[in-house]
Amino acid sequence: MNFKELCQNRYSVRGYKPDRIPAEALEYIQECVRLAPSAVNYQPWKFYYITNEEDQKKLQQCYDREWFREAPAYVLACKLTGEAWTRRYDGLNHADIDIAIAVEHLCLAAAEQGLGTCWVCNFRVQLCKEIFCLPEGIEPSVIIPIGYPSTDDIPEKKRKEIEDIWVED
Amino acid sequence: MNFKELCQNRYSVRGYKPDRIPAEALEYIQECVRLAPSAVNYQPWKFYYITNEEDQKKLQQCYDREWFREAPAYVLACKLTGEAWTRRYDGLNHADIDIAIAVEHLCLAAAEQGLGTCWVCNFRVQLCKEIFCLPEGIEPSVIIPIGYPSTDDIPEKKRKEIEDIWVED
Repeated sequence: MNFKELCQNRYSVRGYKPDRIPAEALEYIQECVRLAPSAVNYQPWKFYYITNEEDQKKLQQCYDREWFREAPAYVLACKLTGEAWTRRYDGLNHADIDIAIAVEHLCLAAAEQGLGTCWVCNFRVQLCKEIFCLPEGIEPSVIIPIGYPSTDDIPEKKRKEIEDIWVED
Repeated sequence: MNFKELCQNRYSVRGYKPDRIPAEALEYIQECVRLAPSAVNYQPWKFYYITNEEDQKKLQQCYDREWFREAPAYVLACKLTGEAWTRRYDGLNHADIDIAIAVEHLCLAAAEQGLGTCWVCNFRVQLCKEIFCLPEGIEPSVIIPIGYPSTDDIPEKKRKEIEDIWVED
């Protein structure tokens, strides 16, 4: 599968089989995340892999959807804003940019392994922080449910046309 | 080349051959960018592909490095903050996260095509905006030089260990 096919195959999976993630697939995904680039190579991120029932129930309180509860595992991706690079010209802290790169590596690596994921950003951030007693400086950014998709159908993507996003001089 | 190998092969290329980017490779990269996911699928981005000398000189004023001037082409990736999704729980606008995903798609697709890129974030953002007369709402986020690397050697990556970034419950 080339990279374009991988981009086509990765989609927001909102239905999972209960099967656990094989250790080998998980290691492969971890390595792809680890290799992600970041501003000044600061790697301002921490990933919590959540498989036990108690912690899963906590996470499900932060994002209460029926499909979300089906996932056999979750990754809570956190940014370390205090450890990220800040651009002096406009003061932009790059933690969001860095964590996004790493999370997309995760989703693409998972898709290659036949695993589904979904970027869940619309969760109760503050509750999540409190409920997991995350230390100061570790901020929940996105939750990624992960598991085998309950269906083999890959939906067609709706995207803007090239002409609408790409300008040549 | 599987995705892990692609992650290993992508690196910050700071030396380029003068050869132009073939149309076919460029189309492939564009399509991989186009397919990138974004919050609520809003796709709040615009990519300026800069190959003419006048515009390249302008860009080089915003990031004045000798190696940077070698690149045969550049992509100026802009975020459309006003068109991006904002998380109601903490008010976080997701334009940075979205543009980061799309730019990493670009860099990975390019690497697969044998092309080098480099995330250049440390450029003079306001000058860039003014010099290209970018309309309100289109904000320069990152400049990506693109071209064939001047060397075939791929440097080894220095990254944190898995144990330092990944926590299992």
